[in-house]
Amino acid sequence: MSDCIFCKFAKGTDNIPIHKVYETDKTLAFLDISPLAEGHVLVIPKEHYQFFHEVDDASLADLLPVAKKVALAVGAENYNLLQNNGTLAHQVVPHVHFHIIPKPDEKRGLGIGWPAKQRSPEEQAETLKRILAKLS
Amino acid sequence: MSDCIFCKFAKGTDNIPIHKVYETDKTLAFLDISPLAEGHVLVIPKEHYQFFHEVDDASLADLLPVAKKVALAVGAENYNLLQNNGTLAHQVVPHVHFHIIPKPDEKRGLGIGWPAKQRSPEEQAETLKRILAKLS
Repeated sequence: MSDCIFCKFAKGTDNIPIHKVYETDKTLAFLDISPLAEGHVLVIPKEHYQFFHEVDDASLADLLPVAKKVALAVGAENYNLLQNNGTLAHQVVPHVHFHIIPKPDEKRGLGIGWPAKQRSPEEQAETLKRILAKLS
Repeated sequence: MSDCIFCKFAKGTDNIPIHKVYETDKTLAFLDISPLAEGHVLVIPKEHYQFFHEVDDASLADLLPVAKKVALAVGAENYNLLQNNGTLAHQVVPHVHFHIIPKPDEKRGLGIGWPAKQRSPEEQAETLKRILAKLS
């Protein structure tokens, strides 16, 4: 998309300076400009998609092996992979991106809130039924 | 690994009941037993690896297309994909797993803390240099 900043990064248009870490035909990795910790990298499909569930399978198949290579080079002992879809889920740039976020200590890196709830076996069975109906 | 609960899920040993959503030769998706929101699904490589950066590339290439299929079936408008490595980064079960976590409202789903910091161009250049040295 012509007005998408990550598409510009992927295509190298407008000469916007990025800190490119790695790329393949389908995938680009670069330093996050506003990192949660040192070594915070974004990995994106070069094709434009807003949401994860829209991305073509070939781009998806390429992405995680690249992210792994980058994660090994970043070398964090503790880290999170995060990909956000939708404003409510903290997506800011509307071009799919996976964060590799080192977690060096409690203060830096991704802050995680985990409001887990037990659901009854009946509720779980109902959820499963709903999902399976869409998969068949 | 014989004492790994997710390996038991993947191999179907010990007859542990799970809510299986989808599987391929390499990947298994099932409902999280203690969901952050309705439709919270885990997607795992069937092979045992503790950390993301250890997983074989073929398993990685298989995983995201499965996660996409599941995300489409879960059908959340807002959601997060999350994969945690190490105790400090909130990893509990030591077998790589990707969370698909619907974010229906502020209270449910993943809570995200984002302590972003601007770093100087010099600091970013230093980080890039360090990472690129490990990639070459």
